[in-house]
Amino acid sequence: MSTVPHTPTEASPFAEVRLAAEAARTAARVLAALTEQQRNAALEAMAVAIERNAAAILEANAEDLRLAQSLLASGELSEATHSRLALTPHKVTEMAAQVRAVAELPDPLGRQLDAIELDSRLDLEKLSVPLGVLAIIFEARPDAVTQISALALKSGNAVLLKAGKEVERTAGTLVRLLRAALAGTAVPPEALALLTGREQVHHLLQLSSLVDLVIPRGSKALVEFVQANTRIPVLGHSEGVCHIFVDRSANHELALRVVDDAKTDYPAACNAVETILLDREIAPALLPPLAAHLRSRGVHLVGDGETRSLLGNAAVDPVADWHTEYGDLTLALRIVADLDEAIAHIHQFGSAHTDAILTEDAAHAARFLREVDSASVFHNASTRFADGFRYGLGAEVGVSTARLHARGPVGLEGLTTYKYILRGAGQVAGDYRGPNARPFTHRRPAGAG
Amino acid sequence: MSTVPHTPTEASPFAEVRLAAEAARTAARVLAALTEQQRNAALEAMAVAIERNAAAILEANAEDLRLAQSLLASGELSEATHSRLALTPHKVTEMAAQVRAVAELPDPLGRQLDAIELDSRLDLEKLSVPLGVLAIIFEARPDAVTQISALALKSGNAVLLKAGKEVERTAGTLVRLLRAALAGTAVPPEALALLTGREQVHHLLQLSSLVDLVIPRGSKALVEFVQANTRIPVLGHSEGVCHIFVDRSANHELALRVVDDAKTDYPAACNAVETILLDREIAPALLPPLAAHLRSRGVHLVGDGETRSLLGNAAVDPVADWHTEYGDLTLALRIVADLDEAIAHIHQFGSAHTDAILTEDAAHAARFLREVDSASVFHNASTRFADGFRYGLGAEVGVSTARLHARGPVGLEGLTTYKYILRGAGQVAGDYRGPNARPFTHRRPAGAG
Repeated sequence: MSTVPHTPTEASPFAEVRLAAEAARTAARVLAALTEQQRNAALEAMAVAIERNAAAILEANAEDLRLAQSLLASGELSEATHSRLALTPHKVTEMAAQVRAVAELPDPLGRQLDAIELDSRLDLEKLSVPLGVLAIIFEARPDAVTQISALALKSGNAVLLKAGKEVERTAGTLVRLLRAALAGTAVPPEALALLTGREQVHHLLQLSSLVDLVIPRGSKALVEFVQANTRIPVLGHSEGVCHIFVDRSANHELALRVVDDAKTDYPAACNAVETILLDREIAPALLPPLAAHLRSRGVHLVGDGETRSLLGNAAVDPVADWHTEYGDLTLALRIVADLDEAIAHIHQFGSAHTDAILTEDAAHAARFLREVDSASVFHNASTRFADGFRYGLGAEVGVSTARLHARGPVGLEGLTTYKYILRGAGQVAGDYRGPNARPFTHRRPAGAG
Repeated sequence: MSTVPHTPTEASPFAEVRLAAEAARTAARVLAALTEQQRNAALEAMAVAIERNAAAILEANAEDLRLAQSLLASGELSEATHSRLALTPHKVTEMAAQVRAVAELPDPLGRQLDAIELDSRLDLEKLSVPLGVLAIIFEARPDAVTQISALALKSGNAVLLKAGKEVERTAGTLVRLLRAALAGTAVPPEALALLTGREQVHHLLQLSSLVDLVIPRGSKALVEFVQANTRIPVLGHSEGVCHIFVDRSANHELALRVVDDAKTDYPAACNAVETILLDREIAPALLPPLAAHLRSRGVHLVGDGETRSLLGNAAVDPVADWHTEYGDLTLALRIVADLDEAIAHIHQFGSAHTDAILTEDAAHAARFLREVDSASVFHNASTRFADGFRYGLGAEVGVSTARLHARGPVGLEGLTTYKYILRGAGQVAGDYRGPNARPFTHRRPAGAG
């Protein structure tokens, strides 16, 4: 409703993002109709381009690293981010290998998800097709460019990449050479575009009519920012508050081993455990050896009053709250009355990411697996298995704590949707209504659906 | 940031909606763990309650109709809405029958969507589970209450119903008696709640942490309002701008029959056709008989300049635009150079709902089915087949023009998500890494996935 006219200067960054998105949409239509061989050939061309241009990539990365030094000094960049930014000749070789590995995955497109005969010579088929245009917003990791581009093109999607400021030069060089490589293939180069500049994120997040899915790759703050600022569906998770419930009939040795792995294998991962819930019946016997073992592994224990009085207040700090993703070697301990209280705790404080029960009681295991409403629920296994590679999905596009479309570890399938194809011989709907209506057969061929 | 305190009067409608949603969330957890038999028994109890309370339902409906008369007079209610509002004893019997029909559908829960052995005694399973809490916002139709409640409970979901003002009394009576019926079953009555009052829609649409999916059932204006005012995923479609492309090698008799059905069978339906695209080569021979036939069926033709000069300007009015869903017997005609121009027109002006090609040319049919990016793409069949019942989905929850989660006609499956269940024997992730890593087997049992 403002009467102030938009000056060209104001309008241009938005126009630039919109133009890139429109070009990506057009390219996506071409891409969707290509064969698996054509898409794989494009990925191979990309891998070759990465290998041949390793020197240019490393040079651009060196410049990013130089600039990052000053951001590091001023505190605008964390040590962790800085270390993820750095490429080596070996890492560049790995980037090319990763692209080839994606090419070798089974084709996610054209899969027959269902088939049903509606009537003689009237056959319905449900086939997997690409989503369309993806937007990926990522922070420091340069290999996000090549890995995400490969996953997107493999699944027939165009992709708009928005790189963090700290990795702009490396990403710019990569996208330039990948687009040059695509120019010699059936995939239009416009299927891959890089957006830079902080304000372009805001513009991009407004393009809900042109972008089908946004995938934020980076910090919890980034994911939450994206979720709060767009109507485009978001694939990602901001939190992984995972639990292990040690039931009264758990095997003690198994509990020590699984809890250790779930906490210490990779504490920064979203599938690392935050809270151990112990059945009151097993606590006096299990808690002392468990705590001693964990402390010997460098784990910092926090807990409720009952845990502290069992173990001694010096050994366990009071817990601040039950809904914290520590991301480090901190582990919360709580004693619960029974399975019901454990499930209630998980629903109240968890993030529906991954939760496990350790027990030898088959009935308790079955109830936990049925009643706990999380994307992944485990019996007698470490929460760390919740991962696309370990699940055998081939590649992991992300982990989703949303309930719609894709939940839990998401493979290439998460970048597809489907369409219905009906092949007829001139049938009309009017013939299937009224007093002389033809009946539908609704017959599924063997093996379909 | 306001310093004005919320008075109890201001806070209460929102608090009421939130309390209902929280109670629904709790009920949904109970509901998710019930067996198919328990859910079906609840549906049977609902059907019985509808039959036994027919008089009370009709009385409440009579009051709604009395009040609607004045809204009709003041123009606040359309004739069409008013006619959808009215119940008869026969319609009440049909409502009960519909609920029993939903009970008889195959169970959408606990379906094994995939299974994969990660290692010996480490088995992953992907099972269908309920979405959680649904919100349904509907206008005049009283049978929306019983049908949607049945679909929701069958699929293990709690449901918050928001009825239009014009149907509040009928809906209130129905929900009261359905909840009373549930009280005698394993399904908690809180799994079904009715919200009334205009402002409660706004409150409901804010509850993205408690509601998993919103389904607007009603006018285009309602769907667009919901889509624009919530972060909760929306299942629905605001537009069905459907096309039929009549290729140069189409069978003329087939074209007349299919176009007639697609327009006249039920012009108000979202899968009725809006625009016929004719290949220039076939137009001079086909257009005159097609137009004469359609006019004899009461169809009002609009078209581009070329159509008008072929048929005479008196027979065809100029088209106003190509992106209108007429919802009546108006049909737009356009002549295109070829298949490519037809596909480009559909992508530019369509709503990706349902589009068809009529042709005897197998190569053209294949290209159309592959390249047109719509939820349903048809060869030699009327667009009117795009419907959950006709597709054999058992029941239609809605038609979706979104690309994620569910696309096209949506059956009960659209009200489910999945979870991963991993059953182990104490395995830890650390054993599968490093120099002595155990390999994953990633073996699918025969018949899975």
